[in-house]
Amino acid sequence: MKPPNVLLSKARLEALVDGVFAIAMTILILEVKVPELADRRSAAELFRSLGHALPTLLAYFFSFGMLAAFWVWHHRLAAKVERLDVPLIALSLCFLSLVSFFPFAAALLGRYPLNAGSLAVYMPAVEGILLCQVGFFAHARRRGLVDPELAAAESLAIHRRNLKGTLFFTLWSAPSLLRLSWAWAVVPLVLGAFLLLLLRRSR
Amino acid sequence: MKPPNVLLSKARLEALVDGVFAIAMTILILEVKVPELADRRSAAELFRSLGHALPTLLAYFFSFGMLAAFWVWHHRLAAKVERLDVPLIALSLCFLSLVSFFPFAAALLGRYPLNAGSLAVYMPAVEGILLCQVGFFAHARRRGLVDPELAAAESLAIHRRNLKGTLFFTLWSAPSLLRLSWAWAVVPLVLGAFLLLLLRRSR
Amino acid sequence: MKPPNVLLSKARLEALVDGVFAIAMTILILEVKVPELADRRSAAELFRSLGHALPTLLAYFFSFGMLAAFWVWHHRLAAKVERLDVPLIALSLCFLSLVSFFPFAAALLGRYPLNAGSLAVYMPAVEGILLCQVGFFAHARRRGLVDPELAAAESLAIHRRNLKGTLFFTLWSAPSLLRLSWAWAVVPLVLGAFLLLLLRRSR
Amino acid sequence: MKPPNVLLSKARLEALVDGVFAIAMTILILEVKVPELADRRSAAELFRSLGHALPTLLAYFFSFGMLAAFWVWHHRLAAKVERLDVPLIALSLCFLSLVSFFPFAAALLGRYPLNAGSLAVYMPAVEGILLCQVGFFAHARRRGLVDPELAAAESLAIHRRNLKGTLFFTLWSAPSLLRLSWAWAVVPLVLGAFLLLLLRRSR
Repeated sequence: MKPPNVLLSKARLEALVDGVFAIAMTILILEVKVPELADRRSAAELFRSLGHALPTLLAYFFSFGMLAAFWVWHHRLAAKVERLDVPLIALSLCFLSLVSFFPFAAALLGRYPLNAGSLAVYMPAVEGILLCQVGFFAHARRRGLVDPELAAAESLAIHRRNLKGTLFFTLWSAPSLLRLSWAWAVVPLVLGAFLLLLLRRSR
Repeated sequence: MKPPNVLLSKARLEALVDGVFAIAMTILILEVKVPELADRRSAAELFRSLGHALPTLLAYFFSFGMLAAFWVWHHRLAAKVERLDVPLIALSLCFLSLVSFFPFAAALLGRYPLNAGSLAVYMPAVEGILLCQVGFFAHARRRGLVDPELAAAESLAIHRRNLKGTLFFTLWSAPSLLRLSWAWAVVPLVLGAFLLLLLRRSR
Repeated sequence: MKPPNVLLSKARLEALVDGVFAIAMTILILEVKVPELADRRSAAELFRSLGHALPTLLAYFFSFGMLAAFWVWHHRLAAKVERLDVPLIALSLCFLSLVSFFPFAAALLGRYPLNAGSLAVYMPAVEGILLCQVGFFAHARRRGLVDPELAAAESLAIHRRNLKGTLFFTLWSAPSLLRLSWAWAVVPLVLGAFLLLLLRRSR
Repeated sequence: MKPPNVLLSKARLEALVDGVFAIAMTILILEVKVPELADRRSAAELFRSLGHALPTLLAYFFSFGMLAAFWVWHHRLAAKVERLDVPLIALSLCFLSLVSFFPFAAALLGRYPLNAGSLAVYMPAVEGILLCQVGFFAHARRRGLVDPELAAAESLAIHRRNLKGTLFFTLWSAPSLLRLSWAWAVVPLVLGAFLLLLLRRSR
């Protein structure tokens, strides 16, 4: 069934992508540590400790949401690509190396949420992931690797949506590196808008 | 074969679900630490240390059982859904974020089994997982995304079973937050009843 | 294609099994710690530290081999089963809870290879895994869930091979708990014999 | 569809391979630790700490690239093999035990990049992985397990490419154990050449 001259079957790449995402998502929680209590039966002390860990907990759910968005986005793009060539494989693996790097960036942000340096690691990681995705679909279009049943107009619309999302993120993340407090206030809005943009016009 | 206008193929979601569950189940054991022994060859000392780690070990098997029950339940529901829309994907990802959060709640419970605060984190996590599942199937029914070969009566029966299981858990978990010792005595009964309820009438 | 009244599709169970095994195998290596060196550039010191970690390293490869054997065995049995009922699912999940517990037992053995207590945890874990497998196929045979194309004689032969392997392991492991040094000398022989037994008469 | 006398289905092996690779790739990042800061809001201190962790970070991306190359290579070879016999399964599992060992070797290299001992662990691990791959395809050819649609000349060409890549790596890695600084300068060149060799002539 599968012609022997295929470079790498899409099923394999998708399996690796699912595996790396599943682990990156689950590893995020390893950063949230069980607190050490002086009085092992004191619920009050436990809640106080968890209260201190709240930024880390919020960072967990926020970063999980980011990874989930990237995962949905990747599979929506990959579903429209019919065949993989060397640059598509290379871009996917770069993408995965950043996804797998993501838990570190998330841990940094969870531990030092008010440190501009954390955002300066987190933001470029996200930016790299976005660029890999944009490049993935752009290359597939240029080389005619896109599903032939996909209308040219639709393919262009997807490409533009990718570019718009990335541009939007870039325009927002650049100033946020300067005004940290502002960044945190807008984060939920941006994540929401970003998700809507990706999922919009989905039949 | 797969129409290009599908939002996200069910196969991909199921693969991510399996991955996240496999990791969450396996990460549970990382909380059980190899003890430090003064006399490296003393079996007696090793058993004494493991005896102290017994609550953590029991919490491991108990939490593994919970995750296993959620996993079976999810796939039984998902098998009856034919197509995913945006809310179904979002609910599934919320579900996964809680599944992936679960090892932390389990670690807390294993470390502080007699602390009411541990249950106050564990129970809401389970509750959230149950509600995601109930919502998943309820939404699929409302939007007609359920397998058309499934009889309406059967679909309703599944929905009612979901609600009953969740209600049952809620009614039990609420008072258990007040009377901790009682909670622990009933846990195995509840888990058993819960599993039976889910698997009942399975040809 | 898939009838909606199937309890749980075999593909899902096999995916979870592969996931849990992949993680359990990979988590084994987390127990081998990077040593702390006084002189960061001294190869001699690094080798000395790794020399001390040799039992842990050998335990890693040995336990990886055990998991690999269980994995091959499970899939060989599962390939011959056509449909899953509740006890088969329950046995598979018990099996997985022990597989996922295995890295802890392996870590214990790697840290305290000369402590009889380590073997007293490791051996029962292996024994439990073996019994789950034997029970899995025995139950499938009793309930007629085995592939109908499999000849009765062949099915019986597989069942007997399962029993023989388990009996063999039990007979060997029981005395080894008493004479520890002897146990270690026979381990490679036993593992080899065990693998041969499983793979024998393969097509 | 699947004949019951198949030793182990290729789909299962490929799923395990994808799982182990996904985890090994993601575990690499666990070695990069979130730094402890005296002043939690100081971006300068954070960057200084990350600067010290730069070798570890580079080792992460380098080792991820190595694993990615092995993964692509494995699936390209496995796609050309039609059926698995016992030695092919054994070689694949040896291969996986080294892949799963790889994060330890990478952590060693990241922590002690200028210690010849680190390379003396890393290089043999890579060498073992290469030899498993070469052996995998060589055995499949000898036993006629290769896809019959694959022309003999093409099969021989693949085998020769495998040998060439391994020889190339061996010739390079042997002297690098003696002259460490030289090794690091050539690493990116070698990795690039190695990848090109593998992917060359891919339609």
